[in-house]
Amino acid sequence: MLENLKQSVCQANLDLVRHGLVILTWGNVSAIDRETNLVVIKPSGVSYDDMTAEDMVVVDLDGNVVEGNLRPSSDTPTHLAIYKAFAEVGAVVHTHSTYATAWAQACRSIPNLGTTHSDTFHKAVPCTAEMTTEQIERAYEAETGTVIADAFRDMEPMHTPAVLVAHHGPFTWGKNAKEAVQNSVILEEVARMASITLALNPTVEMNDDLVEKHYNRKHGANAYYGQIKK
Amino acid sequence: MLENLKQSVCQANLDLVRHGLVILTWGNVSAIDRETNLVVIKPSGVSYDDMTAEDMVVVDLDGNVVEGNLRPSSDTPTHLAIYKAFAEVGAVVHTHSTYATAWAQACRSIPNLGTTHSDTFHKAVPCTAEMTTEQIERAYEAETGTVIADAFRDMEPMHTPAVLVAHHGPFTWGKNAKEAVQNSVILEEVARMASITLALNPTVEMNDDLVEKHYNRKHGANAYYGQIKK
Amino acid sequence: MLENLKQSVCQANLDLVRHGLVILTWGNVSAIDRETNLVVIKPSGVSYDDMTAEDMVVVDLDGNVVEGNLRPSSDTPTHLAIYKAFAEVGAVVHTHSTYATAWAQACRSIPNLGTTHSDTFHKAVPCTAEMTTEQIERAYEAETGTVIADAFRDMEPMHTPAVLVAHHGPFTWGKNAKEAVQNSVILEEVARMASITLALNPTVEMNDDLVEKHYNRKHGANAYYGQIKK
Amino acid sequence: MLENLKQSVCQANLDLVRHGLVILTWGNVSAIDRETNLVVIKPSGVSYDDMTAEDMVVVDLDGNVVEGNLRPSSDTPTHLAIYKAFAEVGAVVHTHSTYATAWAQACRSIPNLGTTHSDTFHKAVPCTAEMTTEQIERAYEAETGTVIADAFRDMEPMHTPAVLVAHHGPFTWGKNAKEAVQNSVILEEVARMASITLALNPTVEMNDDLVEKHYNRKHGANAYYGQIKK
Repeated sequence: MLENLKQSVCQANLDLVRHGLVILTWGNVSAIDRETNLVVIKPSGVSYDDMTAEDMVVVDLDGNVVEGNLRPSSDTPTHLAIYKAFAEVGAVVHTHSTYATAWAQACRSIPNLGTTHSDTFHKAVPCTAEMTTEQIERAYEAETGTVIADAFRDMEPMHTPAVLVAHHGPFTWGKNAKEAVQNSVILEEVARMASITLALNPTVEMNDDLVEKHYNRKHGANAYYGQIKK
Repeated sequence: MLENLKQSVCQANLDLVRHGLVILTWGNVSAIDRETNLVVIKPSGVSYDDMTAEDMVVVDLDGNVVEGNLRPSSDTPTHLAIYKAFAEVGAVVHTHSTYATAWAQACRSIPNLGTTHSDTFHKAVPCTAEMTTEQIERAYEAETGTVIADAFRDMEPMHTPAVLVAHHGPFTWGKNAKEAVQNSVILEEVARMASITLALNPTVEMNDDLVEKHYNRKHGANAYYGQIKK
Repeated sequence: MLENLKQSVCQANLDLVRHGLVILTWGNVSAIDRETNLVVIKPSGVSYDDMTAEDMVVVDLDGNVVEGNLRPSSDTPTHLAIYKAFAEVGAVVHTHSTYATAWAQACRSIPNLGTTHSDTFHKAVPCTAEMTTEQIERAYEAETGTVIADAFRDMEPMHTPAVLVAHHGPFTWGKNAKEAVQNSVILEEVARMASITLALNPTVEMNDDLVEKHYNRKHGANAYYGQIKK
Repeated sequence: MLENLKQSVCQANLDLVRHGLVILTWGNVSAIDRETNLVVIKPSGVSYDDMTAEDMVVVDLDGNVVEGNLRPSSDTPTHLAIYKAFAEVGAVVHTHSTYATAWAQACRSIPNLGTTHSDTFHKAVPCTAEMTTEQIERAYEAETGTVIADAFRDMEPMHTPAVLVAHHGPFTWGKNAKEAVQNSVILEEVARMASITLALNPTVEMNDDLVEKHYNRKHGANAYYGQIKK
């Protein structure tokens, strides 16, 4: 069942380790099959050392386990909320990567300070509101999805494929697991650059025209970065 | 004598190197056999490159060497004081890992700024009081244990399995050597995240409800993180 | 056609990865054959993992592709502008290396704070002016070359073989691809050292005599660093 | 001639690379044979990749080359000045390691903020005075030795085996090349810890009694760290 998706989700989880974005059993990747609305996700608290595609768990959009012997990641309800809120998302990644998590802990959005940021995230990567006591007690992981959706009320999730959950850490997404992991790699790098930049110049800001130029040369109607897709 | 414990203590010492937490001959791990009250600990100032399980030293809770050809770590009295003060501790780790040591040198407790911290340490990781001249001169390493015990007067050592000794560095502990090393890995990461976070937002604080939620989803009566232990 | 140059440009691109200066497909190296005025450059958005010398693209100084099946780097017009402005440059490197990019994002020149900097860059590594909206819309990459040339109006490009493009990142150059890459390695290191230095002493400055001494012992008429070139 | 010393000096130079203290051709190690007053030192500007013991250069205390086909390190006069000023020094190391160099660029001594520092350096690692224009022009490298000796007028060079040369970088020393390299490793680590510590607590200071205790448990008359030397 969904063997290809399991393979790519397993590989993406291992890639998080390879890129230095997770330690121990932290972090998780999922991907959705939009035809059946089934989601493949990493099991909870399992070591990366001996993880295989067969360990991946299949759940439906209500969180019911459809296949798999292990419990799905405890962050599963957040992943599901993202799939429900953002129709174009094909995969979701959650890490506690150092700098992106530090920004989340600081409850600050990562401002767009340069073309490295513009190329992938277009605008500031938003930090969610802090959750209320009621939200935390009711259904914490699902409500995490709610504050994420709220943070994107006036934004395009596929243009800014990342969010910081206040006091928690980053989630990124993409069309598929590989792209979602790549966005986590870039997020950590822009988070690191931004913290160094602000130490050097706390009030710096970037011209919006340059933001648009860089985003559009890669993603706009007349994009000219990379090779022509045939 | 205590071969399994020697094996796991030796492995745990080598894991400190693998995780980048110690350089040269710094750092040491011990574990206790609570039935015999014997402690297995790394020898003092020996290179990690050719350390074997046989090099581990066995001491009793008064610090007498019971077995072994080498001198035990000079920090042995501190380890013993922790075992005597905290009855549930099965293993102790001491490192000079960079960020945790910097917090200790700054004489600051590491505040709980996010769920990464909450998951493992529940509350702020306390920094001990600075030792008095009298304590330093009397029995420095044993008195290090005293200030550690004092720092936990109103805390649960198994809920917050780490401490910073002022102007010195971190000690962590756990049920066994593997868990104690893992807590050292996490401590260094949360120390690093916290220093980056405070540079971005010096006055940030975290909602206590979120602290409790994250700690309890992993360690509470209704924990749902990880796989079900059978 | 230009096989040796392709080989050295390909190797130099791979060296950027080895030195930790680029991630994913970021960064690009080019070199010029001054006899034919043909430039060999990395293709756009291609993975480093399977890049070979044959993938390198040959363009003329107007940016026309003379040989190669792939599109040249989208930064090609900037490289060409540098070759046209600075007649002694034999190769150009562009990276988004972390610290140099942070300085560029902060819109600050990297001051010369020590002999490590003096040895290679002689004076402060300048940050360009921010581009105007008109420049960005007209011919962004070529205008990037314009602001670089402007930044060197009163400077010697072969004595200070590096520049920061405001809100973008560093370009370095040299007599050949190997030297240009080496200058990128050194730039990242001096950028990192300078940010740590200013955190320790925000107002420190360096004596000009020491600057001249160090630059000249390596590059002056009576240079005595390294072995005698025969 | 001095084959053993050449071997150990060559190995020590390669160890600088392995420990991440130098890049490119930066850094140099020397050692002295106190019976003949001959010094073995790394050649200038030679790649670490193919350096062998035979490449090491032998000079006398006046800097005359006694053996070797390559030019000695351009920093040779500084090494020689250290041997002449400090009679117990057996080997000298110079690096541009990142954090120690940043402290040197900031013209600040590294304060003793914790036991990691006390264990090896006893007191603050001093930063020299900035050189005068006259000193720079007269005999720069030898005068570097002069400001180093001046910085130790009231200090014990074998108790504090390191110095920062203002706007330049660190020199360390020891009884032999291995110990001098080890002191460079520790210096970089304490420099890094100190910069993180001061960001967390800019006014922190350490109790002198603790300084003495830690230094003496390793180096004092009743030292009890490490194994008993037989």
